[in-house]
Amino acid sequence: MNSECIFCKIAAGELPSSKVYEDSDTFAFMDIGPVVKGHTLVIPKHHYDPITGTPDDVLHKLITVVKKIAQAQTEGLKADGINITQANGKIAGQIIPHVHFHVIPRFANDRHSWNWIPKKYDTPEEMHQFAGKIKSSLKS
Amino acid sequence: MNSECIFCKIAAGELPSSKVYEDSDTFAFMDIGPVVKGHTLVIPKHHYDPITGTPDDVLHKLITVVKKIAQAQTEGLKADGINITQANGKIAGQIIPHVHFHVIPRFANDRHSWNWIPKKYDTPEEMHQFAGKIKSSLKS
Repeated sequence: MNSECIFCKIAAGELPSSKVYEDSDTFAFMDIGPVVKGHTLVIPKHHYDPITGTPDDVLHKLITVVKKIAQAQTEGLKADGINITQANGKIAGQIIPHVHFHVIPRFANDRHSWNWIPKKYDTPEEMHQFAGKIKSSLKS
Repeated sequence: MNSECIFCKIAAGELPSSKVYEDSDTFAFMDIGPVVKGHTLVIPKHHYDPITGTPDDVLHKLITVVKKIAQAQTEGLKADGINITQANGKIAGQIIPHVHFHVIPRFANDRHSWNWIPKKYDTPEEMHQFAGKIKSSLKS
Protein backbone atom coordinates (compact mmCIF):
# COMPACT_ATOMS: atom_id res chain seq x y z
CA MET A 1 0.00 0.00 0.00
CA ASN A 2 1.17 3.47 -0.91
CA SER A 3 0.26 5.71 2.03
CA GLU A 4 -0.23 8.74 -0.23
CA CYS A 5 -2.47 6.99 -2.77
CA ILE A 6 -6.19 7.72 -2.70
CA PHE A 7 -7.04 4.48 -4.55
CA CYS A 8 -5.01 2.39 -2.09
CA LYS A 9 -7.01 3.99 0.72
CA ILE A 10 -10.32 3.38 -1.04
CA ALA A 11 -9.43 -0.29 -1.64
CA ALA A 12 -8.45 -0.65 2.03
CA GLY A 13 -11.73 0.94 3.17
CA GLU A 14 -9.88 3.89 4.71
CA LEU A 15 -11.69 6.31 2.40
CA PRO A 16 -15.36 5.91 1.54
CA SER A 17 -16.58 4.81 -1.88
CA SER A 18 -19.69 3.46 -3.52
CA LYS A 19 -18.47 -0.12 -3.94
CA VAL A 20 -19.69 -2.31 -6.77
CA TYR A 21 -17.42 -5.36 -6.45
CA GLU A 22 -14.59 -6.69 -4.31
CA ASP A 23 -12.49 -9.84 -4.18
CA SER A 24 -9.13 -10.65 -2.63
CA ASP A 25 -7.16 -8.80 -5.31
CA THR A 26 -9.54 -6.40 -7.03
CA PHE A 27 -11.90 -3.57 -6.12
CA ALA A 28 -14.54 -1.77 -8.23
CA PHE A 29 -16.36 1.42 -7.29
CA MET A 30 -18.25 4.34 -8.76
CA ASP A 31 -16.29 7.24 -10.26
CA ILE A 32 -17.59 10.34 -8.45
CA GLY A 33 -17.07 12.42 -11.61
CA PRO A 34 -18.73 10.18 -14.19
CA VAL A 35 -18.28 10.83 -17.90
CA VAL A 36 -21.64 9.06 -18.15
CA LYS A 37 -23.65 8.08 -15.07
CA GLY A 38 -22.82 4.53 -14.05
CA HIS A 39 -19.08 5.04 -14.79
CA THR A 40 -17.18 2.50 -12.69
CA LEU A 41 -13.48 2.14 -11.83
CA VAL A 42 -11.68 -1.21 -11.50
CA ILE A 43 -8.40 -1.26 -9.57
CA PRO A 44 -5.99 -3.77 -8.04
CA LYS A 45 -5.86 -3.58 -4.23
CA HIS A 46 -2.09 -3.60 -4.41
CA HIS A 47 -0.42 -0.44 -5.70
CA TYR A 48 0.89 -0.72 -9.27
CA ASP A 49 1.41 1.88 -11.97
CA PRO A 50 1.45 2.27 -14.94
CA ILE A 51 0.11 -0.72 -16.93
CA THR A 52 3.65 -1.58 -18.01
CA GLY A 53 4.62 -1.88 -14.33
CA THR A 54 1.67 -4.16 -13.50
CA PRO A 55 2.30 -7.94 -13.39
CA ASP A 56 0.49 -9.98 -16.03
CA ASP A 57 -1.44 -12.04 -13.45
CA VAL A 58 -2.77 -8.83 -11.87
CA LEU A 59 -3.84 -7.53 -15.30
CA HIS A 60 -5.61 -10.82 -15.97
CA LYS A 61 -7.63 -10.44 -12.77
CA LEU A 62 -8.41 -6.81 -13.59
CA ILE A 63 -9.64 -7.47 -17.13
CA THR A 64 -11.80 -10.34 -15.86
CA VAL A 65 -13.48 -7.94 -13.43
CA VAL A 66 -13.75 -5.27 -16.14
CA LYS A 67 -15.71 -7.79 -18.21
CA LYS A 68 -17.94 -8.60 -15.23
CA ILE A 69 -18.72 -4.92 -14.70
CA ALA A 70 -19.41 -4.43 -18.44
CA GLN A 71 -21.86 -7.34 -18.29
CA ALA A 72 -23.55 -5.93 -15.19
CA GLN A 73 -23.80 -2.40 -16.64
CA THR A 74 -25.31 -3.81 -19.81
CA GLU A 75 -27.94 -5.74 -17.89
CA GLY A 76 -28.47 -3.62 -14.79
CA LEU A 77 -28.38 -0.20 -16.45
CA LYS A 78 -29.68 -1.39 -19.83
CA ALA A 79 -26.61 0.21 -21.44
CA ASP A 80 -26.58 0.34 -25.26
CA GLY A 81 -22.77 0.08 -25.34
CA ILE A 82 -19.70 0.13 -23.12
CA ASN A 83 -16.40 2.02 -23.31
CA ILE A 84 -13.36 0.71 -21.51
CA THR A 85 -10.44 3.08 -21.12
CA GLN A 86 -7.16 3.07 -19.25
CA ALA A 87 -4.72 5.99 -19.12
CA ASN A 88 -1.00 6.01 -18.36
CA GLY A 89 0.66 9.33 -17.65
CA LYS A 90 -0.67 12.86 -17.19
CA ILE A 91 -0.53 13.55 -20.93
CA ALA A 92 -2.91 10.61 -21.39
CA GLY A 93 -5.34 12.09 -18.85
CA GLN A 94 -4.36 9.96 -15.85
CA ILE A 95 -5.01 11.76 -12.57
CA ILE A 96 -4.47 9.09 -9.89
CA PRO A 97 -1.20 7.19 -10.45
CA HIS A 98 -2.56 3.76 -9.43
CA VAL A 99 -3.39 1.57 -12.43
CA HIS A 100 -7.16 1.62 -13.13
CA PHE A 101 -9.68 0.77 -15.82
CA HIS A 102 -12.71 2.93 -16.51
CA VAL A 103 -15.87 1.02 -17.45
CA ILE A 104 -18.30 3.54 -18.91
CA PRO A 105 -21.86 2.66 -19.91
CA ARG A 106 -23.12 4.33 -23.07
CA PHE A 107 -26.70 5.19 -23.93
CA ALA A 108 -28.29 6.29 -27.19
CA ASN A 109 -29.18 9.62 -25.58
CA ASP A 110 -26.04 10.24 -23.49
CA ARG A 111 -24.76 13.06 -25.75
CA HIS A 112 -21.15 12.11 -25.10
CA SER A 113 -18.51 11.91 -27.81
CA TRP A 114 -14.82 11.10 -27.52
CA ASN A 115 -13.35 13.59 -29.98
CA TRP A 116 -12.09 10.57 -31.93
CA ILE A 117 -10.57 12.12 -35.06
CA PRO A 118 -8.67 9.66 -37.25
CA LYS A 119 -5.56 11.22 -38.76
CA LYS A 120 -3.53 10.04 -41.73
CA TYR A 121 0.06 9.04 -42.18
CA ASP A 122 1.88 11.19 -44.73
CA THR A 123 2.81 8.02 -46.64
CA PRO A 124 2.42 4.24 -46.18
CA GLU A 125 6.17 4.20 -45.53
CA GLU A 126 5.71 6.50 -42.55
CA MET A 127 3.21 4.03 -41.04
CA HIS A 128 5.63 1.14 -41.60
CA GLN A 129 8.38 3.16 -39.94
CA PHE A 130 6.23 3.62 -36.83
CA ALA A 131 5.43 -0.11 -36.89
CA GLY A 132 9.13 -0.90 -37.21
CA LYS A 133 10.07 1.24 -34.21
CA ILE A 134 7.42 -0.48 -32.09
CA LYS A 135 8.39 -3.97 -33.30
CA SER A 136 12.05 -3.47 -32.62
CA SER A 137 11.28 -2.41 -29.04
CA LEU A 138 9.06 -5.40 -28.16
CA LYS A 139 10.29 -7.49 -25.22
CA SER A 140 9.84 -11.24 -25.49
CA MET B 1 -13.37 -17.01 -38.76
CA ASN B 2 -16.20 -14.73 -39.79
CA SER B 3 -16.01 -14.45 -43.57
CA GLU B 4 -17.44 -10.93 -43.53
CA CYS B 5 -15.09 -9.58 -40.86
CA ILE B 6 -12.22 -7.33 -41.94
CA PHE B 7 -10.24 -8.02 -38.77
CA CYS B 8 -10.55 -11.81 -39.23
CA LYS B 9 -9.14 -11.35 -42.74
CA ILE B 10 -6.29 -9.16 -41.50
CA ALA B 11 -5.38 -11.69 -38.79
CA ALA B 12 -5.44 -14.48 -41.40
CA GLY B 13 -3.21 -12.49 -43.78
CA GLU B 14 -5.98 -12.28 -46.38
CA LEU B 15 -5.98 -8.50 -46.18
CA PRO B 16 -2.76 -6.47 -45.84
CA SER B 17 -1.76 -4.69 -42.66
CA SER B 18 1.30 -3.16 -41.09
CA LYS B 19 1.91 -5.89 -38.53
CA VAL B 20 3.54 -5.18 -35.20
CA TYR B 21 3.14 -8.50 -33.38
CA GLU B 22 1.71 -11.96 -33.90
CA ASP B 23 1.47 -15.15 -31.87
CA SER B 24 -0.78 -18.20 -32.12
CA ASP B 25 -3.82 -16.40 -30.68
CA THR B 26 -3.22 -12.69 -31.03
CA PHE B 27 -2.41 -10.15 -33.74
CA ALA B 28 -1.36 -6.49 -33.49
CA PHE B 29 -1.19 -4.02 -36.35
CA MET B 30 -1.22 -0.30 -37.12
CA ASP B 31 -4.55 1.54 -37.22
CA ILE B 32 -4.63 3.21 -40.65
CA GLY B 33 -6.62 6.12 -39.17
CA PRO B 34 -4.52 6.89 -36.09
CA VAL B 35 -5.84 9.20 -33.38
CA VAL B 36 -2.13 9.79 -32.74
CA LYS B 37 0.59 8.38 -35.01
CA GLY B 38 1.75 5.00 -33.70
CA HIS B 39 -1.83 3.97 -32.76
CA THR B 40 -1.89 0.16 -32.72
CA LEU B 41 -4.77 -2.36 -32.61
CA VAL B 42 -4.63 -5.65 -30.69
CA ILE B 43 -7.11 -8.37 -31.69
CA PRO B 44 -7.69 -12.07 -31.12
CA LYS B 45 -7.29 -14.16 -34.27
CA HIS B 46 -10.56 -15.90 -33.51
CA HIS B 47 -13.73 -13.87 -33.97
CA TYR B 48 -15.31 -12.67 -30.70
CA ASP B 49 -17.46 -9.67 -29.92
CA PRO B 50 -18.16 -7.76 -27.70
CA ILE B 51 -15.89 -7.97 -24.65
CA THR B 52 -18.68 -9.65 -22.70
CA GLY B 53 -18.77 -12.40 -25.35
CA THR B 54 -15.00 -12.95 -25.22
CA PRO B 55 -13.69 -15.86 -23.09
CA ASP B 56 -11.57 -14.86 -20.08
CA ASP B 57 -8.50 -16.75 -21.33
CA VAL B 58 -8.65 -14.85 -24.63
CA LEU B 59 -8.92 -11.53 -22.76
CA HIS B 60 -5.91 -12.50 -20.65
CA LYS B 61 -3.84 -13.06 -23.80
CA LEU B 62 -5.06 -9.79 -25.30
CA ILE B 63 -4.26 -7.65 -22.26
CA THR B 64 -0.81 -9.24 -22.02
CA VAL B 65 -0.12 -8.19 -25.63
CA VAL B 66 -1.64 -4.74 -24.99
CA LYS B 67 0.93 -4.31 -22.20
CA LYS B 68 3.73 -5.47 -24.53
CA ILE B 69 2.71 -2.91 -27.15
CA ALA B 70 2.44 -0.15 -24.53
CA GLN B 71 5.98 -0.99 -23.41
CA ALA B 72 7.26 -0.99 -26.98
CA GLN B 73 5.52 2.32 -27.85
CA THR B 74 6.99 3.90 -24.72
CA GLU B 75 10.50 2.80 -25.64
CA GLY B 76 10.45 2.73 -29.43
CA LEU B 77 8.43 5.90 -30.00
CA LYS B 78 9.57 7.65 -26.81
CA ALA B 79 5.90 8.14 -25.89
CA ASP B 80 5.17 10.36 -22.89
CA GLY B 81 2.02 8.41 -22.04
CA ILE B 82 -0.28 5.68 -23.35
CA ASN B 83 -4.06 5.46 -23.73
CA ILE B 84 -5.74 2.09 -23.95
CA THR B 85 -9.35 2.05 -25.13
CA GLN B 86 -11.86 -0.61 -26.09
CA ALA B 87 -15.35 0.10 -27.45
CA ASN B 88 -18.43 -2.12 -27.46
CA GLY B 89 -21.35 -1.10 -29.64
CA LYS B 90 -21.84 1.63 -32.23
CA ILE B 91 -22.91 4.14 -29.59
CA ALA B 92 -19.51 3.58 -27.93
CA GLY B 93 -17.73 4.32 -31.22
CA GLN B 94 -17.03 0.74 -32.29
CA ILE B 95 -16.83 0.39 -36.06
CA ILE B 96 -15.55 -3.17 -36.63
CA PRO B 97 -17.53 -5.71 -34.56
CA HIS B 98 -14.52 -7.91 -33.67
CA VAL B 99 -13.24 -7.28 -30.14
CA HIS B 100 -10.15 -5.03 -30.23
CA PHE B 101 -8.02 -2.87 -27.99
CA HIS B 102 -6.56 0.44 -29.15
CA VAL B 103 -3.08 1.23 -27.81
CA ILE B 104 -2.46 4.91 -28.47
CA PRO B 105 0.86 6.61 -27.74
CA ARG B 106 0.63 10.12 -26.34
CA PHE B 107 3.15 12.90 -26.71
CA ALA B 108 3.46 16.25 -24.96
CA ASN B 109 2.87 18.01 -28.29
CA ASP B 110 0.20 15.72 -29.81
CA ARG B 111 -2.63 18.27 -29.37
CA HIS B 112 -5.17 15.50 -28.77
CA SER B 113 -7.78 15.62 -26.02
CA TRP B 114 -10.51 13.13 -25.20
CA ASN B 115 -13.39 15.47 -24.37
CA TRP B 116 -13.31 13.95 -20.89
CA ILE B 117 -15.88 16.02 -18.99
CA PRO B 118 -16.68 14.69 -15.51
CA LYS B 119 -20.37 15.09 -14.66
CA LYS B 120 -22.04 14.98 -11.26
CA TYR B 121 -24.70 12.82 -9.74
CA ASP B 122 -27.72 14.82 -8.59
CA THR B 123 -27.31 13.34 -5.11
CA PRO B 124 -25.07 10.74 -3.41
CA GLU B 125 -28.15 8.53 -3.29
CA GLU B 126 -28.39 8.60 -7.08
CA MET B 127 -24.81 7.32 -7.32
CA HIS B 128 -25.56 4.53 -4.84
CA GLN B 129 -28.65 3.59 -6.87
CA PHE B 130 -26.53 3.20 -9.99
CA ALA B 131 -24.03 1.13 -7.97
CA GLY B 132 -26.88 -1.02 -6.65
CA LYS B 133 -28.23 -1.73 -10.14
CA ILE B 134 -24.76 -2.80 -11.32
CA LYS B 135 -24.10 -4.92 -8.21
CA SER B 136 -27.39 -6.74 -8.44
CA SER B 137 -26.66 -7.68 -12.08
CA LEU B 138 -23.15 -9.10 -11.45
CA LYS B 139 -22.72 -12.75 -12.44
CA SER B 140 -20.55 -14.87 -10.19
